[in-house]
Amino acid sequence: MKKLVIAYSGGLDTSYCAVSLSKKYDVHAVSVNTGGFTQEEIKHIESNAYKMGVSTYKNIDAVSTFYQKVVKYLIFGNVLKNNTYPLSVSAERIIQAIEIIEYAKSINAEYIAHGSTGAGNDQVRFDMIFQTLAPDIKIITPIRDQKLTRQEEIDYLKDNGIEASWEKAKYSINKGLWGTSVGGEETLTSEKALPSEAYPSQLEKEGEEKVTLTFKNGEFIALNDKENAPEVNIEKLNNIASAYAIGRDIHVGDTIVGIKGRVGFEAAAALIIVKAHHLLEKHTLTKWQLQHKEYLSSFYGMHLHEGQYLDPVMRNIEAFLQSSQDMVSGNVTVTLQPYHFSLDGIVSKHDLMSAKFGSYGEENKAWTADDAKGFIKILGNQNKIYQQVNS
Amino acid sequence: MKKLVIAYSGGLDTSYCAVSLSKKYDVHAVSVNTGGFTQEEIKHIESNAYKMGVSTYKNIDAVSTFYQKVVKYLIFGNVLKNNTYPLSVSAERIIQAIEIIEYAKSINAEYIAHGSTGAGNDQVRFDMIFQTLAPDIKIITPIRDQKLTRQEEIDYLKDNGIEASWEKAKYSINKGLWGTSVGGEETLTSEKALPSEAYPSQLEKEGEEKVTLTFKNGEFIALNDKENAPEVNIEKLNNIASAYAIGRDIHVGDTIVGIKGRVGFEAAAALIIVKAHHLLEKHTLTKWQLQHKEYLSSFYGMHLHEGQYLDPVMRNIEAFLQSSQDMVSGNVTVTLQPYHFSLDGIVSKHDLMSAKFGSYGEENKAWTADDAKGFIKILGNQNKIYQQVNS
Amino acid sequence: MKKLVIAYSGGLDTSYCAVSLSKKYDVHAVSVNTGGFTQEEIKHIESNAYKMGVSTYKNIDAVSTFYQKVVKYLIFGNVLKNNTYPLSVSAERIIQAIEIIEYAKSINAEYIAHGSTGAGNDQVRFDMIFQTLAPDIKIITPIRDQKLTRQEEIDYLKDNGIEASWEKAKYSINKGLWGTSVGGEETLTSEKALPSEAYPSQLEKEGEEKVTLTFKNGEFIALNDKENAPEVNIEKLNNIASAYAIGRDIHVGDTIVGIKGRVGFEAAAALIIVKAHHLLEKHTLTKWQLQHKEYLSSFYGMHLHEGQYLDPVMRNIEAFLQSSQDMVSGNVTVTLQPYHFSLDGIVSKHDLMSAKFGSYGEENKAWTADDAKGFIKILGNQNKIYQQVNS
Amino acid sequence: MKKLVIAYSGGLDTSYCAVSLSKKYDVHAVSVNTGGFTQEEIKHIESNAYKMGVSTYKNIDAVSTFYQKVVKYLIFGNVLKNNTYPLSVSAERIIQAIEIIEYAKSINAEYIAHGSTGAGNDQVRFDMIFQTLAPDIKIITPIRDQKLTRQEEIDYLKDNGIEASWEKAKYSINKGLWGTSVGGEETLTSEKALPSEAYPSQLEKEGEEKVTLTFKNGEFIALNDKENAPEVNIEKLNNIASAYAIGRDIHVGDTIVGIKGRVGFEAAAALIIVKAHHLLEKHTLTKWQLQHKEYLSSFYGMHLHEGQYLDPVMRNIEAFLQSSQDMVSGNVTVTLQPYHFSLDGIVSKHDLMSAKFGSYGEENKAWTADDAKGFIKILGNQNKIYQQVNS
Repeated sequence: MKKLVIAYSGGLDTSYCAVSLSKKYDVHAVSVNTGGFTQEEIKHIESNAYKMGVSTYKNIDAVSTFYQKVVKYLIFGNVLKNNTYPLSVSAERIIQAIEIIEYAKSINAEYIAHGSTGAGNDQVRFDMIFQTLAPDIKIITPIRDQKLTRQEEIDYLKDNGIEASWEKAKYSINKGLWGTSVGGEETLTSEKALPSEAYPSQLEKEGEEKVTLTFKNGEFIALNDKENAPEVNIEKLNNIASAYAIGRDIHVGDTIVGIKGRVGFEAAAALIIVKAHHLLEKHTLTKWQLQHKEYLSSFYGMHLHEGQYLDPVMRNIEAFLQSSQDMVSGNVTVTLQPYHFSLDGIVSKHDLMSAKFGSYGEENKAWTADDAKGFIKILGNQNKIYQQVNS
Repeated sequence: MKKLVIAYSGGLDTSYCAVSLSKKYDVHAVSVNTGGFTQEEIKHIESNAYKMGVSTYKNIDAVSTFYQKVVKYLIFGNVLKNNTYPLSVSAERIIQAIEIIEYAKSINAEYIAHGSTGAGNDQVRFDMIFQTLAPDIKIITPIRDQKLTRQEEIDYLKDNGIEASWEKAKYSINKGLWGTSVGGEETLTSEKALPSEAYPSQLEKEGEEKVTLTFKNGEFIALNDKENAPEVNIEKLNNIASAYAIGRDIHVGDTIVGIKGRVGFEAAAALIIVKAHHLLEKHTLTKWQLQHKEYLSSFYGMHLHEGQYLDPVMRNIEAFLQSSQDMVSGNVTVTLQPYHFSLDGIVSKHDLMSAKFGSYGEENKAWTADDAKGFIKILGNQNKIYQQVNS
Repeated sequence: MKKLVIAYSGGLDTSYCAVSLSKKYDVHAVSVNTGGFTQEEIKHIESNAYKMGVSTYKNIDAVSTFYQKVVKYLIFGNVLKNNTYPLSVSAERIIQAIEIIEYAKSINAEYIAHGSTGAGNDQVRFDMIFQTLAPDIKIITPIRDQKLTRQEEIDYLKDNGIEASWEKAKYSINKGLWGTSVGGEETLTSEKALPSEAYPSQLEKEGEEKVTLTFKNGEFIALNDKENAPEVNIEKLNNIASAYAIGRDIHVGDTIVGIKGRVGFEAAAALIIVKAHHLLEKHTLTKWQLQHKEYLSSFYGMHLHEGQYLDPVMRNIEAFLQSSQDMVSGNVTVTLQPYHFSLDGIVSKHDLMSAKFGSYGEENKAWTADDAKGFIKILGNQNKIYQQVNS
Repeated sequence: MKKLVIAYSGGLDTSYCAVSLSKKYDVHAVSVNTGGFTQEEIKHIESNAYKMGVSTYKNIDAVSTFYQKVVKYLIFGNVLKNNTYPLSVSAERIIQAIEIIEYAKSINAEYIAHGSTGAGNDQVRFDMIFQTLAPDIKIITPIRDQKLTRQEEIDYLKDNGIEASWEKAKYSINKGLWGTSVGGEETLTSEKALPSEAYPSQLEKEGEEKVTLTFKNGEFIALNDKENAPEVNIEKLNNIASAYAIGRDIHVGDTIVGIKGRVGFEAAAALIIVKAHHLLEKHTLTKWQLQHKEYLSSFYGMHLHEGQYLDPVMRNIEAFLQSSQDMVSGNVTVTLQPYHFSLDGIVSKHDLMSAKFGSYGEENKAWTADDAKGFIKILGNQNKIYQQVNS
């Protein structure tokens, strides 16, 4: 039988795919951990995979890769899609697609399967990255093609001897290093918020707590003075902040297929890090660095979201962003409270807000009143000329 | 004596100016209400002005003008400087400068005076707008020129028979329709947050409260179903939300004179309105409308902040923004809680998230699986070609 | 039989469509004149259409519509795709598609047919505009679907009694108000220029000739002091300048389907008008008007080229562009010579280059040396601080 | 006497400065060659400098530095200010300022002098770079401060024993690697072109001539197959093309001090290289690389022009541009003719216009008609939804 790699999550859809494809192909299941899995869950998925009849199962640990290839730049760029969403799931899918297709190539698979529907973003991200990196591997998508109901899938599995509880959770949850998405009845329409209980993290702590994030060249290298790999710091911060139920919101955005979509999320660490990093930049970058970073990062987020990670323009923007981080080093102190957080301030030896040059609105040490008058007079020249010529 | 108009706030600096200038000029004091004054305060300022020896005093009510000329566009553009600050004070100064110079022209003044120092943004905004709209009126700035200490000013006033308590408040407050700025010892350096008590509005309510904002063509026309002029709705919303101590933050930004500045603010209404309006736009505008609005609005905010309101490019951007609001009508429900708020959702007949066309990730009604495959295949063409040509 | 409207050009492809579709449908042929047809040519197409068996033929004169809806904004925006191509054909197709679908709706057609292949941009423009403006009218595309060779089409026509000379021209020409495209063997690869004889306009005049273009609010209202509708002025200028063989070039660009395309063109009037209009703007607009116009216009051209004319963001950009033209009035003198032209200069009462305020590099009348020093000192503040803090 | 470095050109203004400053300071003259000087001219300037009483004279050869630090990025970015001007002089001044101040630091000068007036851009570039790189060296600007007439300067020099012919040339010429500026009576107003004889290069050749430019990673490494340092290739190409009087135009732009300025230039090599490089990019870069390069390069040019070269954002943009050049390698053939040139085409192994994937408008090899229909259907989704919801 011909070799086929399947992106396997252990859910109903990919279980249906695994079982039905195993009849015709030599199926190799793979899942990619971008921060959402515990060792136990991986064990569980593995044992299930074999029940579905696959030849092999592999879990690829891509947490560090995920950070290095995508999350790092989302932080450099302070990327929040539509000023809200840290692109948690969008970013994960990219790395998952790349890891899976590289795996398929490494075992000489002729086919690759995924369980996406025809209505969403994931099909675009998977197909496009698969086709670009391995144009000769054929893509198979039973869910998109067959449009079965859940019941039809459950019946099929039962007929094939797979007895399991496929009860649909009230809220579908996707967890990863950079945040957790939450979909449910409320997010299918525009009007309602998700109820508090829909979110995986619940309020566990009262009062307030301060945390200090240390950045070096834009990377989050220490939490509360304890150094670690950035991806470890992200996870630790997320654990602390989730106890305050911080970082809940709903993203409304444009899907790649042109319809609007709405999805809840909680992303305590992502939101705190992005805001803290941005604050440090406000102190250490020049006005035009901030302005152009904003423009490029907004596009970077949009293009990533739309699965265009392999467009070389993404590498060019990453070069800009990396170059912009030379002075983005220092500490940021953040206060956590139930449901929200605030930024206290920063300490950085690259802080451009230095009293040596004068204090805003208070005192001008580096120039005189006459300098200021000359400055303003000439700064206003063009508008003055415009006004006089045209009125 | 020659006629001079002075921008008079009633504080120590402008009092010193009023007294000293009255010796040489026929001084006409004027203050512009952009939302920060009660009738009582105006009375108080008026009576003080006359004590300083001015010939006349006038308070110009510019709340509605402020809304129509600036705030409206800040809402259309969802403008938050550096993703944080609604430009509360920056925006007010522009309108104050315009109103004052128009007043000066209307009474044929030869001189105009303001009390700004040489270290801040306000001098630029005042000078530049004065010079542009009235190139023949000479500008006088005693505070910037003489660099007196507070004590020297107090002594001078005492010598001139003005006895008053000029004790410096621990926090300097500037209140207006679009927010209140708070400066103090902490904001002179980078590290510390303002203490809770520095903010004029204190937490008065617990629990949560829902409010509904109605927008029509982008304008905030009703609060909780009660129609009113937008500037009235803003003030009412601010009163409700301030009781939850919502909208506190610290802005760190680039001053026009090139140094970094830091200022606290509370702007409950501004933040809620901007976020609610933006949410409504996410549902009613196309992807590229959102993208270009973001780019232009960011510049609009920066240019306004820098006093360049009279640059005709601002009118061009306003035309864009106005045109983008054709479908931005509907209701947004917001939940207020102590120190923070969240957006529930929207109802709009222009909502592009319509189940008729398929639900995101769930079902594709308007296209088939084959359509999706064709879409993705061609969408990925360029990157595929790039990869194949270059690897 | 069911009513079908066909976009009919009289060429081999649409003749084949007309004949074969007439067997199953009540075919109504339509062509849209966006500047490329003489009355004789229209007569010729009409008589041919009837030979193909259509029920009716209609030629819609859309020259003025074309100018008002698209060309005007391309001039306002100085749009040259990739700094080269005035988007001659891209822009025409949009208006043709709109006119044709509106015609189909007006006669209650159930079907609409066009002769585009599956490899180009036109199919996207036609399909997308048809589907958007008339979702219920079904689209039929025999050429795209059947992929016949020219010989198969010719044979089919012969079998159906249509004898005509379908010899393929060495260069395929598409003529319109805003330019003429020229495709041929050379443009299928990257290396070679088109030979001079491939261009429809040949050098007929030597020496040089001056022409004066008068713009009012950005619109080209008079040529050599003779007022006319802008679309008439465009055509007249094109006749004059084409005699100098001006405006030849090759456009290399990204097609909507992701491949690169190359096409020759001649567009004497378009290039002269865009350059002349831009020069007038350099004299009458402020720096930031020029800068933002450039950004928005570049996107406007790209989006138009990609058939996205109906995206409401296009209306928003048009509002910006229209607003930017308030002062763009005056005369521009241009010198025409064989194969090239140059701009002499402009006269405008809105010219911001006025000696009253000082001459560049020569004399500063509106400020002193000290003003300039103060200006520079403060203008350089941020970089100075950056340098001192970081070195 | 205290050590002073003077930027010395040998013209009347800097001669006056040299003589008058030598009375009070130990004057060290320096000029920086960015491509405009022959060895003879340097000798001549040197001998003149000593006549003016300076202690030492030094000519710094910065041609290669100029290319590496600035010109390279102007080519990468296809920078033509306002789509016209290659920023010839603007770019030179930056490097001259840096070289001069570094020299002043290296010899421990306490003062630095330049001969700029108070009306132009050069004073800003010189002052700002001097102040940023050497805040402790004091700047002296006799011409700006004293506003002498030419006759007063000539008389002063005569009184000091300097007899020379200071006759003002009808056209002031500034020559450098990246182009030659030409100012004269005509450029002081808006209406007239420069006469042909004002340009230093005159038509010497008739007929046409083909040249081939070879780029490697965006750098111009060979001319007509002969490899050389890019700055050498630029000069050689300029010699060839100047014989055709190619590259004349007039730049109209915004000065840093807010007035409009007009200056003629000839820049045969710069224009040919920029256009050839851009063509190669159109074939080798993706759509979004082209789009974002355009945006960033336009700002890069503006910011450079305004003397803001030391803003770290410029390094960030350079990182983007460098990264974008990975595949910009290949040959471009250009045809030179009297007064104009045209681009024939390119050959590159990175050419994305590859017939393997289908030819534009002719044949679709990589997708089917159904793929195209699916693509268009989904591509149009948002506008269709918008239309249906809102009409």
